[in-house]
Amino acid sequence: MSMSCTCGAVDIHTHFVPENFPAYVGSHADAPWPSTAAANSCHRHVMVRGSIYRTVSEQSWSVGRRISDMHMQRTAHQVLSPMPELLGYWLDVDDGAALCRFLNETVAEMVGQAPGQFSGLAAVPLQDVDCAIRELEFASTVLGLKGAELGTNVNGKPLGHPDFLPFFQAAAKLGASIFVHPLRPAGAERLIGPPMLEQVLGFPGETGLCAASIITGNVLEKAPGLRIAFSHGGGSLASLLPRLQHGWNTFQPLREFCVEPRASARRMFYDMLVYDDATINRLIDVFGLNQLMVGSDYPFSIMDADANQRVHRLSISDDQKHGLIAGNALSWLGVSNAAQLKERVGG
Amino acid sequence: MSMSCTCGAVDIHTHFVPENFPAYVGSHADAPWPSTAAANSCHRHVMVRGSIYRTVSEQSWSVGRRISDMHMQRTAHQVLSPMPELLGYWLDVDDGAALCRFLNETVAEMVGQAPGQFSGLAAVPLQDVDCAIRELEFASTVLGLKGAELGTNVNGKPLGHPDFLPFFQAAAKLGASIFVHPLRPAGAERLIGPPMLEQVLGFPGETGLCAASIITGNVLEKAPGLRIAFSHGGGSLASLLPRLQHGWNTFQPLREFCVEPRASARRMFYDMLVYDDATINRLIDVFGLNQLMVGSDYPFSIMDADANQRVHRLSISDDQKHGLIAGNALSWLGVSNAAQLKERVGG
Repeated sequence: MSMSCTCGAVDIHTHFVPENFPAYVGSHADAPWPSTAAANSCHRHVMVRGSIYRTVSEQSWSVGRRISDMHMQRTAHQVLSPMPELLGYWLDVDDGAALCRFLNETVAEMVGQAPGQFSGLAAVPLQDVDCAIRELEFASTVLGLKGAELGTNVNGKPLGHPDFLPFFQAAAKLGASIFVHPLRPAGAERLIGPPMLEQVLGFPGETGLCAASIITGNVLEKAPGLRIAFSHGGGSLASLLPRLQHGWNTFQPLREFCVEPRASARRMFYDMLVYDDATINRLIDVFGLNQLMVGSDYPFSIMDADANQRVHRLSISDDQKHGLIAGNALSWLGVSNAAQLKERVGG
Repeated sequence: MSMSCTCGAVDIHTHFVPENFPAYVGSHADAPWPSTAAANSCHRHVMVRGSIYRTVSEQSWSVGRRISDMHMQRTAHQVLSPMPELLGYWLDVDDGAALCRFLNETVAEMVGQAPGQFSGLAAVPLQDVDCAIRELEFASTVLGLKGAELGTNVNGKPLGHPDFLPFFQAAAKLGASIFVHPLRPAGAERLIGPPMLEQVLGFPGETGLCAASIITGNVLEKAPGLRIAFSHGGGSLASLLPRLQHGWNTFQPLREFCVEPRASARRMFYDMLVYDDATINRLIDVFGLNQLMVGSDYPFSIMDADANQRVHRLSISDDQKHGLIAGNALSWLGVSNAAQLKERVGG
């Protein structure tokens, strides 16, 4: 095992939750506007419609606490994205836009406290594509956020749907990085066991279907230059891809729809949040060494505390490790300048 | 590449369709009872509610044609299961039971024409579990079928649901082999592209969710001795399993629900119908060399014509190849006697 790659990691999959939310001032009765309430020491409940959605710690909002944790984990840089449930695609668009703006100002303020340590991703109200484009422009140009986190589907419509193409074209034009995270997964009603299985078992399949929709929707061809990343190693995509490729080889109607699936998959980015070294090797085989990045799910209970060390254990060269630890993330973030790179990760 | 394993393959994933169906004699208006109609030479349309569901060739019902194809493909033995759409879980139970009985008598007749070359799997009306158990008993003890093909869900309810446990217990007691095939997949509404994507992209995720429900439903513990196999390499299960294992390691409520997911997964069987040699090696790593079997999807258009040769290309010993080609399938089928084995595959 070589440990000679000494750079700190860029962790592209970390979440934030605001400590407090503004009171609801919209006009829709019973809108599921989130709030927080005191919980045990250093924790707060995220409340939606009077119920506890999740209890989160100060790690979710405290920049100082995060920097302290990053030091212990050898993480040089965190990309901050909203807890996905806060994306609020099910809100009326005026409420959704207001919630996204609040989240974006919150994360910009966090990043502003330590811009070397953090990049921020916006929430955008994709229930209205024009409105989402305007928010992405504001977040990128005014707030300095690096891009946006998107849910895998918007009220059941997958991101590869043609309706979302203008958004991806705008993102490509802005140079905004897109991070796709599962939300309200397909098949949630086909799980047997405790409620957490929605995240444990529902999420990977949902992410795989979404990534496949980007491929079969031919989005990379129609939004040239788009830099899009998927959480959880692309979920089930690595399992879907050989069959999709065979279908594309075999059936002319599919070839008329999109370019070669295997090639498209190797143009997208993925975190390595799969909790298993052998599975990371599988992702390298399927997607390539240049497309994979560290992701930990910090600070939630399902986080992989071993995310950085997994890379060091792989049987690859130091240069390749550096790519997985930091270089690929900087490419996805559009930080290609060597000085910027050095500033970000000290590598 | 070693070709010295000269035995013919046991192909556990092949389908049949009857050449003709009896006229509907049930009592339910507008029941979607299938029929066939003449198509081009050697083909027939399978009709449901006046529309063509699929056009299939004489390979679907002709024993002579199948044996001729098997000779060319070096397949010694085919396991015949119904085209999954024919399982008819959405029919009223009296209609469903009648359709299953017809399918089971049809496949028993096909097997009877060449019992060394074929084993048959029953259809059972799982929309009524007691009725399904009775049909499995009849199919096993009277018709001599080896077990049953099940759809991954019954009108949306996954097979790991406690309602189906009595069926699996009965199957284990009978020594019946269970083959699980995707049907009406979760997420079908989240696909972007031509209709065939339901089979190409929807099927693997559906199979993965079903296999996961068998694990989290703890079915193997509650139905000891059950021999259950999943199509398409278990679909997305190989991608879901590391995260499920991490969830089980991390969350006590999940540990209270089921035994270790990774261990359960390595007690189930899977075909290798994944169209890709590297993916087969991944299945070997995840599930183990003793759990994998040849499956081709003969005679449908998505079939893998290369299913047998893939095994010969793997970098494993001849004994291990023999296991993948035939031995594991015979274990799953419950054909363990050496003389029977020799008779079946000439190995």
